[in-house]
Amino acid sequence: MPAATIGPELQRLIDLLAKMPGLGPRSAKRAALYLLKKRDPVMRPLAYALDEAANKVKACSVCGNWDSVDPCAVCADSDRDQTVLCVVQDVADLWALERAGAHKGRYHVLGGLLSPLDGIGPDDLNLGSLIARGKEGGISEIVLALAATVDGQTTAHYLTDHLESSGVKVTRLSQGVPVGGELDYLDEGTLAAAMKSRRPY
Amino acid sequence: MPAATIGPELQRLIDLLAKMPGLGPRSAKRAALYLLKKRDPVMRPLAYALDEAANKVKACSVCGNWDSVDPCAVCADSDRDQTVLCVVQDVADLWALERAGAHKGRYHVLGGLLSPLDGIGPDDLNLGSLIARGKEGGISEIVLALAATVDGQTTAHYLTDHLESSGVKVTRLSQGVPVGGELDYLDEGTLAAAMKSRRPY
Repeated sequence: MPAATIGPELQRLIDLLAKMPGLGPRSAKRAALYLLKKRDPVMRPLAYALDEAANKVKACSVCGNWDSVDPCAVCADSDRDQTVLCVVQDVADLWALERAGAHKGRYHVLGGLLSPLDGIGPDDLNLGSLIARGKEGGISEIVLALAATVDGQTTAHYLTDHLESSGVKVTRLSQGVPVGGELDYLDEGTLAAAMKSRRPY
Repeated sequence: MPAATIGPELQRLIDLLAKMPGLGPRSAKRAALYLLKKRDPVMRPLAYALDEAANKVKACSVCGNWDSVDPCAVCADSDRDQTVLCVVQDVADLWALERAGAHKGRYHVLGGLLSPLDGIGPDDLNLGSLIARGKEGGISEIVLALAATVDGQTTAHYLTDHLESSGVKVTRLSQGVPVGGELDYLDEGTLAAAMKSRRPY
């Protein structure tokens, strides 16, 4: 397309929208046209919300969750079980566990996984503060809710090693057949793991 | 999910992102997390670009295209054929035709199609200015590049009627088999139209 067809302001908006996950170059154009049609109900409020969130949302100094208050609302919630910590890679995983109602305690967000290949070491993640929380006392169990990948296992091993001396029980999510999953479509690794950790009815 | 897990600033951002076409509630959360990780390279520039485009991008007073200058860059381009006008429903269609390099003249953007069922009449669209452009002189052909739907045909009929007296030749895009399309997968209407307008090799 000749550069002249789309003006510079509009082109800049499209280029930035196209960087968002879930939007490609073509859907970014569609989104830009949609926004221009909804300037007051969506476009200007979105500009304001982006700016406000960029300035106000910060990582919780206790657990690493993102919130506009510190400590975050999850850490400050006294109704939550203070003795069980759930360790997740990212805020998205915290939200997923909350959506499932799977955890009633508090969290610790690592901000990534150890990955020697990508050059991500212990100092790049929220690991030290987790080990400190474990040694502080008051916590009886730390659940490692990490991805079942090589990096997830590396991180889990590192944490298990460093938390051993604190005497806190370290657990991990079970592996097996997903609820509603058909055996036929499962990969061999999952099937083997499910068979290995089979349980009595 | 309990309301407390996601702070109000972040929730407001997610709700607004979820209104964009191509993003649902879950991908809006993913996008919000991505943006928070890229505050300076993407998030703040996006807030600024949204605000700037909302204030500067306006409909061209000649053709209805969106640009930050008026007349728009397409109308102002003297290298374009001034005698052929291509009529499109929306700016997205103008971009599609430009991407294809299918039209070397100027455009007229209607801003929608006549739709008696949805209560969209001639006064809701850019129709009067198109008819005026046709009668002004200097234009030899008006190509109706409108959707092959009931509303598209209604609009085409209305325009053909009102442009008749101006003596301008009114044409429309051909219908037929898409390039690379397999006959087996085409609907009956398209196949019948392609057969009806068959041409010698």
